Amino acid sequence: MKGKARLKTAEEYVECLRKLKLRVYFFGQKIENPTEFPLTKPSQNSVALTFSLAHDPRYSDLMTATSHLTGERINRFTHIPQSSEDLVKKVKMLRLLGQKTGACFQRCVGMDALIALSSVTYELDQKFGTQYYERFNNFLRYVQHDDLVCNGAMTDVKGDRGLRPSKQEDQDLYVRIVEKRTDGIVVRGAKAHQTGATNSHEIIVMPTLAMREDEKDFALSFSTPSDAEGILHIIGRQPNDTRKLEPGEIDVGNATYGVAGHESLVVFDDVFVPWNRVFMCGEYDFSGLLVERFASYHRQNYGGCKTGVGDVLIGAAATIAEYNGVQDASHIKDKITEMVHLNETMYACGIACLHEGCRLPSGTYYVNSLLANSTKQNVTRFPFEMARLALDITGGLAGTLPSEMDLKNPEVGKYVEKYLKGAARVPTEHRMRMIRLIENMVLGAGMIESLHGAGSSQAQRIAILRQAELETKKKLSKDLAGIKENIEN
Amino acid sequence: MKGKARLKTAEEYVECLRKLKLRVYFFGQKIENPTEFPLTKPSQNSVALTFSLAHDPRYSDLMTATSHLTGERINRFTHIPQSSEDLVKKVKMLRLLGQKTGACFQRCVGMDALIALSSVTYELDQKFGTQYYERFNNFLRYVQHDDLVCNGAMTDVKGDRGLRPSKQEDQDLYVRIVEKRTDGIVVRGAKAHQTGATNSHEIIVMPTLAMREDEKDFALSFSTPSDAEGILHIIGRQPNDTRKLEPGEIDVGNATYGVAGHESLVVFDDVFVPWNRVFMCGEYDFSGLLVERFASYHRQNYGGCKTGVGDVLIGAAATIAEYNGVQDASHIKDKITEMVHLNETMYACGIACLHEGCRLPSGTYYVNSLLANSTKQNVTRFPFEMARLALDITGGLAGTLPSEMDLKNPEVGKYVEKYLKGAARVPTEHRMRMIRLIENMVLGAGMIESLHGAGSSQAQRIAILRQAELETKKKLSKDLAGIKENIEN
Amino acid sequence: MKGKARLKTAEEYVECLRKLKLRVYFFGQKIENPTEFPLTKPSQNSVALTFSLAHDPRYSDLMTATSHLTGERINRFTHIPQSSEDLVKKVKMLRLLGQKTGACFQRCVGMDALIALSSVTYELDQKFGTQYYERFNNFLRYVQHDDLVCNGAMTDVKGDRGLRPSKQEDQDLYVRIVEKRTDGIVVRGAKAHQTGATNSHEIIVMPTLAMREDEKDFALSFSTPSDAEGILHIIGRQPNDTRKLEPGEIDVGNATYGVAGHESLVVFDDVFVPWNRVFMCGEYDFSGLLVERFASYHRQNYGGCKTGVGDVLIGAAATIAEYNGVQDASHIKDKITEMVHLNETMYACGIACLHEGCRLPSGTYYVNSLLANSTKQNVTRFPFEMARLALDITGGLAGTLPSEMDLKNPEVGKYVEKYLKGAARVPTEHRMRMIRLIENMVLGAGMIESLHGAGSSQAQRIAILRQAELETKKKLSKDLAGIKENIEN
Amino acid sequence: MKGKARLKTAEEYVECLRKLKLRVYFFGQKIENPTEFPLTKPSQNSVALTFSLAHDPRYSDLMTATSHLTGERINRFTHIPQSSEDLVKKVKMLRLLGQKTGACFQRCVGMDALIALSSVTYELDQKFGTQYYERFNNFLRYVQHDDLVCNGAMTDVKGDRGLRPSKQEDQDLYVRIVEKRTDGIVVRGAKAHQTGATNSHEIIVMPTLAMREDEKDFALSFSTPSDAEGILHIIGRQPNDTRKLEPGEIDVGNATYGVAGHESLVVFDDVFVPWNRVFMCGEYDFSGLLVERFASYHRQNYGGCKTGVGDVLIGAAATIAEYNGVQDASHIKDKITEMVHLNETMYACGIACLHEGCRLPSGTYYVNSLLANSTKQNVTRFPFEMARLALDITGGLAGTLPSEMDLKNPEVGKYVEKYLKGAARVPTEHRMRMIRLIENMVLGAGMIESLHGAGSSQAQRIAILRQAELETKKKLSKDLAGIKENIEN
Repeated sequence: MKGKARLKTAEEYVECLRKLKLRVYFFGQKIENPTEFPLTKPSQNSVALTFSLAHDPRYSDLMTATSHLTGERINRFTHIPQSSEDLVKKVKMLRLLGQKTGACFQRCVGMDALIALSSVTYELDQKFGTQYYERFNNFLRYVQHDDLVCNGAMTDVKGDRGLRPSKQEDQDLYVRIVEKRTDGIVVRGAKAHQTGATNSHEIIVMPTLAMREDEKDFALSFSTPSDAEGILHIIGRQPNDTRKLEPGEIDVGNATYGVAGHESLVVFDDVFVPWNRVFMCGEYDFSGLLVERFASYHRQNYGGCKTGVGDVLIGAAATIAEYNGVQDASHIKDKITEMVHLNETMYACGIACLHEGCRLPSGTYYVNSLLANSTKQNVTRFPFEMARLALDITGGLAGTLPSEMDLKNPEVGKYVEKYLKGAARVPTEHRMRMIRLIENMVLGAGMIESLHGAGSSQAQRIAILRQAELETKKKLSKDLAGIKENIEN
Repeated sequence: MKGKARLKTAEEYVECLRKLKLRVYFFGQKIENPTEFPLTKPSQNSVALTFSLAHDPRYSDLMTATSHLTGERINRFTHIPQSSEDLVKKVKMLRLLGQKTGACFQRCVGMDALIALSSVTYELDQKFGTQYYERFNNFLRYVQHDDLVCNGAMTDVKGDRGLRPSKQEDQDLYVRIVEKRTDGIVVRGAKAHQTGATNSHEIIVMPTLAMREDEKDFALSFSTPSDAEGILHIIGRQPNDTRKLEPGEIDVGNATYGVAGHESLVVFDDVFVPWNRVFMCGEYDFSGLLVERFASYHRQNYGGCKTGVGDVLIGAAATIAEYNGVQDASHIKDKITEMVHLNETMYACGIACLHEGCRLPSGTYYVNSLLANSTKQNVTRFPFEMARLALDITGGLAGTLPSEMDLKNPEVGKYVEKYLKGAARVPTEHRMRMIRLIENMVLGAGMIESLHGAGSSQAQRIAILRQAELETKKKLSKDLAGIKENIEN
Repeated sequence: MKGKARLKTAEEYVECLRKLKLRVYFFGQKIENPTEFPLTKPSQNSVALTFSLAHDPRYSDLMTATSHLTGERINRFTHIPQSSEDLVKKVKMLRLLGQKTGACFQRCVGMDALIALSSVTYELDQKFGTQYYERFNNFLRYVQHDDLVCNGAMTDVKGDRGLRPSKQEDQDLYVRIVEKRTDGIVVRGAKAHQTGATNSHEIIVMPTLAMREDEKDFALSFSTPSDAEGILHIIGRQPNDTRKLEPGEIDVGNATYGVAGHESLVVFDDVFVPWNRVFMCGEYDFSGLLVERFASYHRQNYGGCKTGVGDVLIGAAATIAEYNGVQDASHIKDKITEMVHLNETMYACGIACLHEGCRLPSGTYYVNSLLANSTKQNVTRFPFEMARLALDITGGLAGTLPSEMDLKNPEVGKYVEKYLKGAARVPTEHRMRMIRLIENMVLGAGMIESLHGAGSSQAQRIAILRQAELETKKKLSKDLAGIKENIEN
Repeated sequence: MKGKARLKTAEEYVECLRKLKLRVYFFGQKIENPTEFPLTKPSQNSVALTFSLAHDPRYSDLMTATSHLTGERINRFTHIPQSSEDLVKKVKMLRLLGQKTGACFQRCVGMDALIALSSVTYELDQKFGTQYYERFNNFLRYVQHDDLVCNGAMTDVKGDRGLRPSKQEDQDLYVRIVEKRTDGIVVRGAKAHQTGATNSHEIIVMPTLAMREDEKDFALSFSTPSDAEGILHIIGRQPNDTRKLEPGEIDVGNATYGVAGHESLVVFDDVFVPWNRVFMCGEYDFSGLLVERFASYHRQNYGGCKTGVGDVLIGAAATIAEYNGVQDASHIKDKITEMVHLNETMYACGIACLHEGCRLPSGTYYVNSLLANSTKQNVTRFPFEMARLALDITGGLAGTLPSEMDLKNPEVGKYVEKYLKGAARVPTEHRMRMIRLIENMVLGAGMIESLHGAGSSQAQRIAILRQAELETKKKLSKDLAGIKENIEN
């Protein structure tokens, strides 16, 4: 960490990624040069945009922040929010990136891991007299200085969900400490659904749920380079993934960013982590707190990124309506109105999370966790209805459109051109492009992420009920109904 | 206006109301002493609470504000918001009052009329060189000084909704100027659904829609005392209204506040208004702006008051579940969770309206109108689902519970007592009280207000589509689909 | 039972009711002449219509049937279905009556009690060698011959729903046998929500859930005259119930039929029942079967009656749209379309229940219970959305309309007349009548009945899951996924 | 047509298909042997199942029928329904096939074209004295005798949907007659989204909407062999289509049937049709009737096929819940219950369509068109909610599961095996297979077909409103509200 922190350019980011010795598999094959692999290139482009927009004066207020550690200008994705304004700018930055990519840009998971750890390590130290906070801040300085991309790895593979971690037949189904050494620890296990892990420099591991006393070995948080020895990435499949490997660009829908991030199963096959990167090690009674903090920050985000993506889908629906010649039909306008309404409701929830948030002991600013959970709960529903409406407006061609190769084929291309024309002034190719964008958005991996990103819908419901302050509300109702409680005694 | 402004007490408010010479009809009869009339007493109590809470140190931060005109401490219901913080406090104050009353407390309509006029009169003067702003500020000083309750009267009776105002057979179906005199104007017409009009000192009239050049006489705004000569109030019926006239208190559900405000049809039978109370007079091209400003402020409110009322209903549902002995059933907990989620979504929308709001030329702070409309749109839906869930939890007794009089009857009371007992430790009377509260909330006038307050659902949809910035969104989608527009030309 | 069975006229029905010595309480007072009591007159009119329509040649095919016991022409409300066609005609009859009354006509509960007992008593005898079936058929002959109205009494008051019947502090919270005598039994307890009980000649009691071995005294079914010694009726309150006691007729909404039936809490204060009216007495392992049979038949019904009521509401919404002058607005047409769609979906479910029904050992035809439960489940939802849409179309006047007395008042009536006019050609009174009809339908007791009639929503969900044949469905999915189960072993 | 009709076997069907000289393109390439092309093989297997199940004694009652023309046993897919029982069996047959394939089996479109033409040609002749009915019956005999698969081709490509057919810049955007000759006609145009066209022997063309007098050339119906000169098929893309071309079988989800049919754009490049295959030629005033008949029959179907597919999805959701170890969680059971409820509601609508259907002049039995439209309207919604629930239950792996090739890779397969294990007793491969089935069902072409098959959602809404009998319903409401219409005059 020499010299001042500087904001990387997109090119520098890719260059830096290229130097990693990642072990990446896809489709039963080792990917020799992940930064050039066409299947992951689009998701990498999305991450790269978090760098290039930080250099764009129009967006620098949203995309950058001032480090509370160093006072230097840093990418907001490495920033720990110090105020409610920071929380709002975070959501607005995410909406902006959703609008620009129409996809998942992956860098927020690591950001939220940093933010969550910034307060939990502090509180750990307060209770146990440990040194986690200092370690963490050293790590954070490094991340900020080098403008690194971190992957936040929480979700264990979990095995049988009906059993606690310690009751699984295979003890490795939750990431755990297999050895404590003087210089560090050795960990084993796997994290599932790791969005953007292969586009990241660091992997920040956190526990997946509140551990109990007999589960200390799973109460574990640390960071490790994504190419550390023993780490293996197996990239998961997504709908239409191999279209990215085809010639042409139309059928991908969103050739540059690819409508989703990439997830990998990250295997930790006895990976060594030095002590200065260990942020929790056995303090099981803080594992639930770390999960809750991370989840709350991360659930707020969805009111940003998914509304940005929603803006793209609304725009696409409005465009295809025009291309189809039906933009003035009242039912079409009503469907677009509904999409806008649902989208803005998600956004409103996201930005509202700052209210009744609070400053934590470490100085980190916390979201209103109840509203953050409601935000995400809406994201498990509204994008599905928006997708259905967009499909409705698009028409059946979303499922029957010939390929780009047919359009370009000398023999049949003319028929495609002639018969798939909509409004006369619009080139058939434009119509095909827009339909492909919509198809890939509404039947793509993004839908699954809306549902399962930042935890399942049930996880949010449990959080909502827990924070509902029912006793206070019961009291309100009893007061109005004229019920004096002492009568009951 | 002698001396300093002071915050009225609830008693002073009622005393001051009593002095008005209101002409009020209900049920075909003239109400001689409206302040003592049992049917309207509860809604008057709700308004009175806006005074008494302002004296409660726990709530004074929300309930009061500093006048931007005089620097004096005033009730927030007479305050013109000068910052986004003011807009949030407004919503929080409304939630608080919703929680305390479980009802409509009516005073926000006049507040929003004041707020909307504060900017529109300024802009009118800017364009036409008129003196409306000064007149308005003089009026506002009077309202703030005397801590008055204003009714905001926008909705004309409208006649045939398929015809413009000027095309109605009867020209009086929109409030209009029938005579201009040197000392003032004479107006005729009627305003429908005037919430709290009989609990108000002043009636602030605004046009109901954007008027056209040939509709200048309807482009009209003014204030008048609610007991001015020519003004007649006919109170509308509500579900279960006459229960308030019955002996006993249980069957009303919410004996103190009565679960709703009161609406009257306010008839202006050639009412004289002096020029110093006229705030718009023929400037038709500003009528739409006034409607939009008022509607946006008012639609935000519903994210406050209705979530406060929602808190009561959630509390009531949780309480009755307990009284019925089913509080631990998973489907019951799930229904309560859903109610909380819907309620918090409405609240989130309400407070989010401050973001991307702006300061208007007059200095008044404006809400984000798109989000304000989405807020209200959700309020046309979620309270209905919440009501359905609350009824579900309550059980069939919501529709079959015997009367309080049966409970107290010496002959049959013992059977009611014995057979309508739920959980053994809970007195039957408590269970009956809670069921009555729920019945009156979910099948009461409050539901209609959720739907139609601050304009119909379609009005919001039109506003949402108009503010959707579809062109920007289309551009986003074309960029990602790889469509270069100039190809089309 | 002399002579042939004959179809009573409406007048004969009322005359026959008048002779009963019912003990009825409402509002803390004994009702001396229930057949003339204005509050219950409308619901009695609805029952009476089941008699008069049976004499109308246009409807006799639906309203009457041929007794399988005697071959005589009887009212279908006393008929035991012998074929799937009978099940369809039952639903169509109910839709017809819903259309004609806009209300609950109450007679189907007793009909379903008869139908359920017709098969269960047979199966009881098969197993236990008892004589219930013959007793039941004798009773049925009497009901058919005298064209009687039966009340089907299932729902016990239940006390703490978290405890089994035998665990309640008060053992009387489920109707039970308190004494067995040579000539009959003595019963004690109360049944809640008894729709139409005061308009019935007989009360047929059934258990409310599947009883266990230690709950034999609750496994009880019998019939008793509704005025037997020891029976007491306490009529429950409904929204706007006392409007029926007011002068005038408009504000009731549906002056003739009153938009709902009447429910009473029926108390059995040690009532004697002779053995020939006892249909189950301790055979606890058949109590669940009786509940299930009754519930399935009764849940099908809602696809009939509630769609008839829905037809009225759709018609009312279409009419008020016209009266308001907005019948051609696209959003109005869309809302009406949605109402029709929801209504027809409920109806389709109701009539579909005949498919995959079956003939039971007694010859009685049984509905498809899975579809019957889905039918009712939809009725717990769709009428609420229809109500919301109807309110939306109606406008705010649903909650603010002045009373009929104001309309007729010499002083203010002219203002009501003038200012509440909608489309010029429609009399104000017509508009008021239609709004009142809608108000009373959408915020009335009918909504609660949609939710809780024939058991709570959760009861249906349990039944749906139990009948879902998940194992078969799992097999289908495994076959397609290429999963060979034996690999697992 | 020598000898008696006989039911083809699946093998005979494929053999017969192989002899066709279809011109098929996919992905910019001519498919030389469509019957062996791996991408279309699964959809062909689905059609083949309609043959093999007809030979299975368990299903022959549903799968076969007696020809009303010849009295011979025929496949029900070539049968004209003569009774309401036929309409129910049709739906049940479709549910069965949906259960067995989890996909679209394509043969119902042609069946419905035959059924619709059977009545419309009769009525055409009645009015115009033409010979269409005899021609049609000759064709039908041929289809029944040879057990042929027909494609029903209705949807024109339509160009600018805001313009009538005759106003399009390119007159070929609706299929039309370009030449009438003594021996037949020459047609040009294209039909979009032709499900199963490449698996069919005949293509039956119908107009896409009600034509007007100046659009006679588009009022056209005929049949032609699918390999007639001038016919070109361009197969449309679907999500994950090329997975069928990959090695392995797991990732396809449903390797045998492929979760959807195949659609092609069928181009008619001046195709000659002899007169004996022309069933409508210029009788524009019957074009709307043909569309309505076809659409009504076809919309009913979705209550069959989609509930069969729904059964598979429910089974898959229940299975994956078990594999994940969460089958007993109350929220999981509740979600499965909801899926069952929605599915059975669709089914109930489908079978209910027979009620209030009628016999048409030709003897063909007609569905209740209002209910048929409501059926399909539900299918535009419920499968989306079912998909969302199934995804919810499945978990995030639906979007992140590694490929079959990774599972089988010697180096990383062991990690996939170890870390993607759910409940210990279930092989990882089983879990992967089930997740892949769900992924491909809920994010596949089947969703688009649920929305757009048999016409768009708006088409159904228009049909629903048109058949709503609003005048009758208005009358019902006026009667109850006490409105005497003549007062208005």
